[in-house]
Amino acid sequence: MRAVEIIAKKRDGHTLTREEIDFFVQGFTRGEIPDYQVSAWAMAVLIRGMNADETTALTLAMAHSGHMLDLTAIAPRVVDKHSSGGVGDKTSIVVAPLVSSLGLLVGKMSGRGLGFSGGTLDKLEAIPGFRADLTTHEFIAQLKEHGIVVSGQTHDLAPADGKLYALRDVTATVPALPLIASSIMCKKIAAGAHIILLDVKVGSGAFMKTEADAIALAETMVAIGRGAGRRVGAVISDMNQPLGFAVGNALEVIEAIETLKGRGPRDFTEHCLTVAAQLLLLADAARDETDAHKLARAALADGRALKKFGAWIAAQGGDARVVNDYSLLPRAAIVEDVPAPRAGYIAKINTEEIGLTGVMLGGGREKKGAPIDYEVGILVRHKIGAHVRRGEPLLTIHAKDHTTFAAAEDRLLAAYEFSETALEPPPLIHRIIK
Amino acid sequence: MRAVEIIAKKRDGHTLTREEIDFFVQGFTRGEIPDYQVSAWAMAVLIRGMNADETTALTLAMAHSGHMLDLTAIAPRVVDKHSSGGVGDKTSIVVAPLVSSLGLLVGKMSGRGLGFSGGTLDKLEAIPGFRADLTTHEFIAQLKEHGIVVSGQTHDLAPADGKLYALRDVTATVPALPLIASSIMCKKIAAGAHIILLDVKVGSGAFMKTEADAIALAETMVAIGRGAGRRVGAVISDMNQPLGFAVGNALEVIEAIETLKGRGPRDFTEHCLTVAAQLLLLADAARDETDAHKLARAALADGRALKKFGAWIAAQGGDARVVNDYSLLPRAAIVEDVPAPRAGYIAKINTEEIGLTGVMLGGGREKKGAPIDYEVGILVRHKIGAHVRRGEPLLTIHAKDHTTFAAAEDRLLAAYEFSETALEPPPLIHRIIK
Repeated sequence: MRAVEIIAKKRDGHTLTREEIDFFVQGFTRGEIPDYQVSAWAMAVLIRGMNADETTALTLAMAHSGHMLDLTAIAPRVVDKHSSGGVGDKTSIVVAPLVSSLGLLVGKMSGRGLGFSGGTLDKLEAIPGFRADLTTHEFIAQLKEHGIVVSGQTHDLAPADGKLYALRDVTATVPALPLIASSIMCKKIAAGAHIILLDVKVGSGAFMKTEADAIALAETMVAIGRGAGRRVGAVISDMNQPLGFAVGNALEVIEAIETLKGRGPRDFTEHCLTVAAQLLLLADAARDETDAHKLARAALADGRALKKFGAWIAAQGGDARVVNDYSLLPRAAIVEDVPAPRAGYIAKINTEEIGLTGVMLGGGREKKGAPIDYEVGILVRHKIGAHVRRGEPLLTIHAKDHTTFAAAEDRLLAAYEFSETALEPPPLIHRIIK
Repeated sequence: MRAVEIIAKKRDGHTLTREEIDFFVQGFTRGEIPDYQVSAWAMAVLIRGMNADETTALTLAMAHSGHMLDLTAIAPRVVDKHSSGGVGDKTSIVVAPLVSSLGLLVGKMSGRGLGFSGGTLDKLEAIPGFRADLTTHEFIAQLKEHGIVVSGQTHDLAPADGKLYALRDVTATVPALPLIASSIMCKKIAAGAHIILLDVKVGSGAFMKTEADAIALAETMVAIGRGAGRRVGAVISDMNQPLGFAVGNALEVIEAIETLKGRGPRDFTEHCLTVAAQLLLLADAARDETDAHKLARAALADGRALKKFGAWIAAQGGDARVVNDYSLLPRAAIVEDVPAPRAGYIAKINTEEIGLTGVMLGGGREKKGAPIDYEVGILVRHKIGAHVRRGEPLLTIHAKDHTTFAAAEDRLLAAYEFSETALEPPPLIHRIIK
């Protein structure tokens, strides 16, 4: 088998065999197939596509390029939940303790923010003392003892994916459905969870801008996961506006805790309940949809989820007193409202711009590994469909200085569109794929 | 401007600007754009294509990546002739002295054989003493003094092409029309000739297997050459069987000399006259097609072309006595006929296989820079459409030993197809593009 022949085969639109994909991924991982061959192959994959069998083979080959975590010794059913990335998406911080409080074992490997999209680990690290980078040993120990752990991906998982992603980033081969799907799923599969709920975002603040693209990605990932013997479901959820009101690490932690206290934004609360319900169903922990929602709602209402949150944070070294004292979280020097520039109904919010403004304020990063400020961020005060009067607070900016505040204000106002006439807000959930 | 954006633009099927192509080629030549970006770009170009303006811009950018030879100071009209590569194609050895004897200045940079396709320089080097690798200074001096020079491409011409070709070879991006056309033409343009006749081969022993592909390549190259201010024409000629009878370096030199003496194979002679006539027309050295053919035929008939051949060979250090004494050329140890395995009309010859058998005998190379044997080769004794009796000589093999002879015999016989019924031979010239 020769790499150049495999590239030529995909170039001509043919289907690669599992053996060919294994050979290519193994060769690349070992450094035997050079970058220039891999990038030509990736471009051919982007343009010619891959069928379900090829995509599953690619995912499994990348998953097996490093250590495969086996959680079966701990429990037969460990659950994980993955978001495709959005703005204000603090769902895992609520859902992980919520389903954990209902008896599910949550072993989640999570990511950091990059570009407009925030990351769960960054948000959790806003809590003083919280350790987001556990070793594999610590990950397993905490899962065993507390039934809940959320940590960064360990370095020895799916190294082929890290190499391939770095190359795709500089060769214009990122937006290839089989490569996106396999990149997400190989890490999930290597991380060992038996049950995976995918939250695929669609809209102006998501990587997938159209419902068709989001459904295609979700269906591909569900097929891959099942091909790898996992229970997988997907929720296609809206990202045409920030989820909830808060965008920014500490601000989102507060909003997540408020939600666990039953006082969260209506849309975000409903979203968390939907995701939790799907996890309960996948884990056979509820009879049906209605039962699952009822169980999840009860765990929020009676404080079980909040209690589990505190225990989880403490187990990972965090100061659990934040639950009742938000002043323990970092707070920005400048906290000021941005008034609505006109009266009208909020018609559109360029949500990617909201996310990028958060990055500009210091709350996210353009490049991997850059430091971030936990205290800065944005509170959107009204969502799409709401009527605002001219001059009333449209947003609140948490900034470290007046210069970034002013720049953020201009950028945020430019991201809004208003309408004279009333309009329907976008749906919260576009589709559920079981 | 960023390389990744240029790759993305071509990936999405858009047209690149001249500035973008210049930036990309210059960046690659200087080593600022890494191989892995260039190979992803090349794959996008292969699949998405390039229009005429893009292809011309790419060609000129590669031509200008190194030294541009300016021959205008020597003469306003220097001619060159290029073959796209075939089996038994010794046309340049006849046409260069033929048109030179009619007053044209021939300044030709030529290539070596690779794979099934032979190279003019290898053939000329079968002549004892012949120097095929002149310096730029020697090239110009000989062109001035003798009006004819055929030499290898100097290293400082179009270095971007050498780099790009090496990368294409290992990334399955060789068969891309704009890349093939620009690779050929950038060297021709950098080499300085004002008038270029392209001999594009089509058939089982050519890189272009279909007439449509050959015409597309020829038309693209003609458009590029004209876009670069050169006079360019093209002949689409048949390569469904070896040109003439001889395949092998010394054997082809003999056949070329025989042709210059007016005793060459009918098909090869006609081919040389057609190519020469087109060159004469491009150079305004003939009134019309009929006149051009008449002039060329006369120069063969009265010995002017042969005389010029001797002077040219001597000027480049070769032993011109070979003209009258073929024993000065190397001769193979084994020279034996292969009898026809059956009676019938010769219906097909897999000409690429004939070329590869020549390589196997030692007369060509699989890898650049490998040494070759000048004396080995194949004489086909009958061409397509001819009737052979069982047992009469079908081929003659010139081999260095019995082992390679036997292997060649098997391979050659497998390359022939016979028919019970008479059939028309393929046309010699498929089309002339003016």
